[in-house]
Amino acid sequence: MTKTNAGRFFEDYAVGDVITHAVPRTISGGERAMYHALYPARGALYSSDAFARACGLEASPVDDLITFHTVFGKTVPDVSLNAVANLGYAEGRWLKPVYPGDTLTSESEVIGVKQNSNGKSGVVWVRTTGRNQHGEAVLSYVRWVMVRKRGEGDAPEAVIPELSKSVAAADLVVPEGLHFSDYDTVLAGEPHRLGDYQVGEIIDHVDGVTIEEAEHMLATRLWQNTAKVHFDATNRADGKRLIYGGHVISLARALSFNGLANAQMIVALNAGAHANPCFAGDTVRAWSEVLDIAETDAPGVGAIRLRLVATKGAAGDLRGEDGKYLPEVLLDLDYWALMPQ
Amino acid sequence: MTKTNAGRFFEDYAVGDVITHAVPRTISGGERAMYHALYPARGALYSSDAFARACGLEASPVDDLITFHTVFGKTVPDVSLNAVANLGYAEGRWLKPVYPGDTLTSESEVIGVKQNSNGKSGVVWVRTTGRNQHGEAVLSYVRWVMVRKRGEGDAPEAVIPELSKSVAAADLVVPEGLHFSDYDTVLAGEPHRLGDYQVGEIIDHVDGVTIEEAEHMLATRLWQNTAKVHFDATNRADGKRLIYGGHVISLARALSFNGLANAQMIVALNAGAHANPCFAGDTVRAWSEVLDIAETDAPGVGAIRLRLVATKGAAGDLRGEDGKYLPEVLLDLDYWALMPQ
Amino acid sequence: MTKTNAGRFFEDYAVGDVITHAVPRTISGGERAMYHALYPARGALYSSDAFARACGLEASPVDDLITFHTVFGKTVPDVSLNAVANLGYAEGRWLKPVYPGDTLTSESEVIGVKQNSNGKSGVVWVRTTGRNQHGEAVLSYVRWVMVRKRGEGDAPEAVIPELSKSVAAADLVVPEGLHFSDYDTVLAGEPHRLGDYQVGEIIDHVDGVTIEEAEHMLATRLWQNTAKVHFDATNRADGKRLIYGGHVISLARALSFNGLANAQMIVALNAGAHANPCFAGDTVRAWSEVLDIAETDAPGVGAIRLRLVATKGAAGDLRGEDGKYLPEVLLDLDYWALMPQ
Repeated sequence: MTKTNAGRFFEDYAVGDVITHAVPRTISGGERAMYHALYPARGALYSSDAFARACGLEASPVDDLITFHTVFGKTVPDVSLNAVANLGYAEGRWLKPVYPGDTLTSESEVIGVKQNSNGKSGVVWVRTTGRNQHGEAVLSYVRWVMVRKRGEGDAPEAVIPELSKSVAAADLVVPEGLHFSDYDTVLAGEPHRLGDYQVGEIIDHVDGVTIEEAEHMLATRLWQNTAKVHFDATNRADGKRLIYGGHVISLARALSFNGLANAQMIVALNAGAHANPCFAGDTVRAWSEVLDIAETDAPGVGAIRLRLVATKGAAGDLRGEDGKYLPEVLLDLDYWALMPQ
Repeated sequence: MTKTNAGRFFEDYAVGDVITHAVPRTISGGERAMYHALYPARGALYSSDAFARACGLEASPVDDLITFHTVFGKTVPDVSLNAVANLGYAEGRWLKPVYPGDTLTSESEVIGVKQNSNGKSGVVWVRTTGRNQHGEAVLSYVRWVMVRKRGEGDAPEAVIPELSKSVAAADLVVPEGLHFSDYDTVLAGEPHRLGDYQVGEIIDHVDGVTIEEAEHMLATRLWQNTAKVHFDATNRADGKRLIYGGHVISLARALSFNGLANAQMIVALNAGAHANPCFAGDTVRAWSEVLDIAETDAPGVGAIRLRLVATKGAAGDLRGEDGKYLPEVLLDLDYWALMPQ
Repeated sequence: MTKTNAGRFFEDYAVGDVITHAVPRTISGGERAMYHALYPARGALYSSDAFARACGLEASPVDDLITFHTVFGKTVPDVSLNAVANLGYAEGRWLKPVYPGDTLTSESEVIGVKQNSNGKSGVVWVRTTGRNQHGEAVLSYVRWVMVRKRGEGDAPEAVIPELSKSVAAADLVVPEGLHFSDYDTVLAGEPHRLGDYQVGEIIDHVDGVTIEEAEHMLATRLWQNTAKVHFDATNRADGKRLIYGGHVISLARALSFNGLANAQMIVALNAGAHANPCFAGDTVRAWSEVLDIAETDAPGVGAIRLRLVATKGAAGDLRGEDGKYLPEVLLDLDYWALMPQ
């Protein structure tokens, strides 16, 4: 009997199952420094204790996507080791900021299964929750993946969860104490407040970053995501390694600082598609579209819903005439962020 | 109207203007660890709390060049996004050590402008000051850059600041409490004290480091320096990215440990020229020339003025018969460091 | 007279000499984060303060190999700068966990010398001890290297130390307070306890990692190991840099999580051979063989002795018919780890 983890197959998931993921992780200033070396992340709230305190927080939290990657990374050995494809995200909500010193754990509940008609694979939906050392939920999101079947057995009864198209503005969680009453746009890097953005507006973030193998591997390992396609060059004839989709998410989000410097905190992930694979040597650019604007109860704090697109092509281009993503599009992400009004 | 920062042009600078730069940054042990992974930095004072305390400091400060890069990086979006060339440095003084937990901000005053005779660009001089969370200045330096003009307008009145050729020894700031009374040369790595060096002496630092794209990009991002030439391979036919000059400064300084292990703290930057561009694949070596030696009021603390040259060539070679830098020379830096007497 | 360190030659070592190594180093969460970005390290005890506390420790210590590399790196300028080969390790014992905030120093005693018959080099044995800021030993190990002679002088009297083939189970040091009474195998990542392993069992760790130049240089510098063969591409016609053997040790150990997730703490290094050189582009895999199983006095804590092999080839393959290591084998390491019973 082998001692190594072969990963779960489609048959190993039943609706209602709760999977506690290994390995708990304490975050320090080290993870933040690595993150800032890996991505051109410059959000003031995530860079400066003084800035964060002026916004009512106890200190500068780690970037929201550090929380996401840490929680997500733990699910890989249990959810996506045998995944054929990462199909989508929904109902993601950040529930509490994470600070250096916090220890994160991750848990997933199986909320849907549906065997494919070919009988060789199926779709599994899980709702994953990240918690801190006090047991408080810091993040919750739904992800669904296509997973290979081990054998030829009968299909389980299909359960397809009903998922919101997007998180309602009223369900966004503003961190306790956060306010943008004395928000300093000069220190934040741009003057544009919520009122300066219009639904439908497209923002070209201009800058491009060419990815190196060493960088995406450092990033992926940092989240203890050990899916072998990201690390083993012998998997492909060209010696390239498939880049973790989350690397592209973080890179695009960081590039979006240029035009969205005040979209400070990510509070919801409405949807997301890794449209095409990304490889070392690709030069990644980003553009955003304003999808919605909302208010919150916190002083001076508004919310902006954004489509964030990572691409090797031009800003604004997304789908071809056939409705499919253009080949140069890497990521299409739909999220809510908090912004000063 | 675009929301992204197109950078300032020559017309956007007027003598007396004060620019507050985004984004404030809290430094942690993470930045130090990254720095020590990126450069062969081994100065004992910047490596060990115990060693720093034995020298009268509260703990080990971050390397002086971390302070420099952090303060400098913030100026890039406001000063050098449209810069044609980074022309020089002067009157740089480190005024207070920076410790993990400190938050740095950066501000620049325009102190000179002079349009070029071609009418298409001009030179801008700024004095940049970095401050900690208490508002205390930690670093001040003058930099001048050549910046493109936006249009065809008239030239402003030329103002060329008078700058010292070098910081006078009497103006060097020794950190409060610092002494080298019980300095341990064994733990520091070399026996040579100030009296062992002679003006005119040339030190070949021997070791070479071949630079990879991933490394200089990690380094440059760590300082939130987002100048696109460092990251976007599509800017050049050969796919190489121009390496941030500060990466070469830090690399050369770290290499100079071998022969100058006791040149502990950088306290002044007298002058500096990025003689030729540096690219991934270059193997960088360094040599130093002792320019001056001075005393300070602090117990056991002397000062050594050094020319630090980063090169792809031989130690001692600097300029050709035409007086120009040799093509293999990358950096010519003139600085003061504190050294045990 | 040159100021740079030319390194010691065989003549410079005499049995009984004690060498205090530069440069002391304070470890922070930054070094841990870098380590977790460089290697797929997932040991729960080294990842989570909460998990470590549940095992009786005050917090999560840094990975044992961080301690090893930090202590080892300091010895390079004094021991292996002119080394022709790193021949072996013995009697390595971890004596106390290292926590963020600790400052490490390193000291070596020469315990053996033997000139080679060619008269051009010799073997030097040193016992190296790492200590924390309280002067407490945290690690001790013997290493022997082949070092060039400077000249043609007579051979010193040969002294060959008697070294144990392996550390006896009774001599293993279990950290004070450590227990595995409430050990959580779910959070740790695998169900296998000591009783599930059998002497002679071979575990294929399955995953492979392709190494990039940037990664091994970042790692090697992090330990302030400045041996030039690891950094200077002009040393070889193919432009490759010889990878620090410790990088392969850490990579293989991290890969061994998959099958040995509960082999938590390394407490002894019995023997080790860098069988063949490793270069960027190599895809490294790992396999382990269970060599021995033992008990300790600590509640629930057992010990497992493992052979860890890093290879570019298949699991289980080690030596050819001639008894020599196969060319694809990179590392053969013999160590003890603590594991829940």
